Amino acid sequence: MRFEDAVPWLHLHRLTGGGAGLRRLLTHFGDIPAICAAPRSELLPFFDGDQSPVDALRAGPDAGQFEAERAWLDDPSNHLVAITDSAYPSLLHEIPDPPPLLFVRGDATLLCAPQLAVVGSRNPSRGGSDNARAFSDYLARAGLLVTSGLALGIDACAHEAALAAGGETIAIAATGLDRVYPAAHRDLAHRIVAQGALVSEFALGTPPRRENFPRRNRLISGLSLGVLVVEAALKSGSLITARLAAEQGREVFAIPGSIHSPLARGCHALIRQGAKLVETAPDILEELGALARFVAAPPGSNATVPGTPPDPAQQELLELMGYDPVEVDMLIERSGLTPGSVSSMLLHMELCGLIEARPGGRVQRTS
Amino acid sequence: MRFEDAVPWLHLHRLTGGGAGLRRLLTHFGDIPAICAAPRSELLPFFDGDQSPVDALRAGPDAGQFEAERAWLDDPSNHLVAITDSAYPSLLHEIPDPPPLLFVRGDATLLCAPQLAVVGSRNPSRGGSDNARAFSDYLARAGLLVTSGLALGIDACAHEAALAAGGETIAIAATGLDRVYPAAHRDLAHRIVAQGALVSEFALGTPPRRENFPRRNRLISGLSLGVLVVEAALKSGSLITARLAAEQGREVFAIPGSIHSPLARGCHALIRQGAKLVETAPDILEELGALARFVAAPPGSNATVPGTPPDPAQQELLELMGYDPVEVDMLIERSGLTPGSVSSMLLHMELCGLIEARPGGRVQRTS
Repeated sequence: MRFEDAVPWLHLHRLTGGGAGLRRLLTHFGDIPAICAAPRSELLPFFDGDQSPVDALRAGPDAGQFEAERAWLDDPSNHLVAITDSAYPSLLHEIPDPPPLLFVRGDATLLCAPQLAVVGSRNPSRGGSDNARAFSDYLARAGLLVTSGLALGIDACAHEAALAAGGETIAIAATGLDRVYPAAHRDLAHRIVAQGALVSEFALGTPPRRENFPRRNRLISGLSLGVLVVEAALKSGSLITARLAAEQGREVFAIPGSIHSPLARGCHALIRQGAKLVETAPDILEELGALARFVAAPPGSNATVPGTPPDPAQQELLELMGYDPVEVDMLIERSGLTPGSVSSMLLHMELCGLIEARPGGRVQRTS
Repeated sequence: MRFEDAVPWLHLHRLTGGGAGLRRLLTHFGDIPAICAAPRSELLPFFDGDQSPVDALRAGPDAGQFEAERAWLDDPSNHLVAITDSAYPSLLHEIPDPPPLLFVRGDATLLCAPQLAVVGSRNPSRGGSDNARAFSDYLARAGLLVTSGLALGIDACAHEAALAAGGETIAIAATGLDRVYPAAHRDLAHRIVAQGALVSEFALGTPPRRENFPRRNRLISGLSLGVLVVEAALKSGSLITARLAAEQGREVFAIPGSIHSPLARGCHALIRQGAKLVETAPDILEELGALARFVAAPPGSNATVPGTPPDPAQQELLELMGYDPVEVDMLIERSGLTPGSVSSMLLHMELCGLIEARPGGRVQRTS
């Protein structure tokens, strides 16, 4: 979004506090121009009868109030994505409280890519960190985007491993994107901007506030097909993310551990509540393969989504498959491709609904 | 059962191989005298038309054939319990293939006591052995009988811990009870006879045979309210016991572990199939409290079963409780009893249906 188009959004975002208030206005009036043109009497109920924001709204934005945003948007890697934009991720439309405006640093088209959230303790064990890295490495190589919260511990391991695998990663921040929290992750944040995206629903300048972290967590799960909890104590932020994921209809995965480890308690509690116990990253892909067929295609997105036609390499693989179930090993042999690239292509093709996994490690064309 | 009464049972047990054949005869003819009095033409179909066992049956037993059994039954700690006896455990009546005759060394009345099976790997990790001991110690102190298979590893840890806690334990053998398998557990077996019971459905003299172990496993689960799998590889005997338990409608509990431990794989597979993940022994008691109310009272049993009237000490505790939910701590304080004896009494009372567990660690009278 160009700065000129962004100004009315930024104005309303600021006047409403950016969340449910702006969403209610949009739902009622349809779009920003209609809100700005609405009579005072119709606007007042949306501000609890408070005159001053209504006056400010009707006075219109003063572009001078948004110098920081102007400068921020001058950087070509910074973007605003509004809920009415075609680039807005379709999965977020499904959650109960989608953010009306997203601030994005990096590649905004990645918002629509199939992604898995990897979250966990800020103080993980050595084993937990290793698991976070190993799972994220595998998922990234298989073509899934790894989403997390840029926090210390498991979050950082997940982002780092996805980057190291040459994959893409999204970090959802609980602050304005003109700052990095925690400060120790400044370098990591820059690498994510270059090879993924930083995302926030909070206005520039928003400092870390306790109440914004659970609100941020709903976006980590909301953007993702599922949430993997690697290690988590009872009463941790990761368990909030997992609860939100379940409420949003997302799959929840948890890695078990020793009954004597306090960091396994959260995962065990989730498994007892119905989360899928996972021992390996392929366990997750197996579940997601079935799940992803229910994800609606986001309009105008060029990410891998159901309904996307196969690209030439995929088409070639489809032709090698014929119409009967075939073994993946046979496809690797016939295609001359590496096992890694075949499995990555197959995952994308399954997420697109072009193929289905069949029993015995085989795959089959759906049409 | 006295030797004189046992001879016809032993005779039929031997002629039919002791299992389904004898059960079918009992189901059809009602009791042993009726079988022995049945005309040849009615008996032949039960022996696939084979004349010789029918001739032997109609000729009647020759007591001289059972000298080993006579000597065995001369030992007052040895018993035979037939499926038609009132001492036969009611839970075994519910399984698809109850053994018609049980050989018991030790206290045969324990067969009817509420029990939990604790099973697992013959080659457990140090941590797995510790868990088996800790859970069994707690369960035994809480008044549950610990049942297992006398095998090396987890089974032995479970039996040993129950004995050390002053509790009772049942070992189900896959051989005749005139031998001990594995031989290394000869001393353990003797201690179990003195403080519990050894049980087998196999005739004296039966050596260890591969096919008898899974058959034995169905009795471990069949006698128990539930089965706890402590550590187990995929494709292990413990998983067979757990599968049989689920088929018999018994609760299955499994202890999770590191995803990198092959001995946790079996437990994780069970949890994915619906077994309850347990972190502590009280987790099990909580589940069993609700479950045990569905267990039918075995006729003539003096074990703790639903419908049993409270004993004087229990009656005193019931009076202390009043009719509102009360905290267990308060009961300990008011009764002047130790926490251990109060929780043991409460478990028995819950298993009898006299009280119910309520949220917040409280209990309440049911009537």
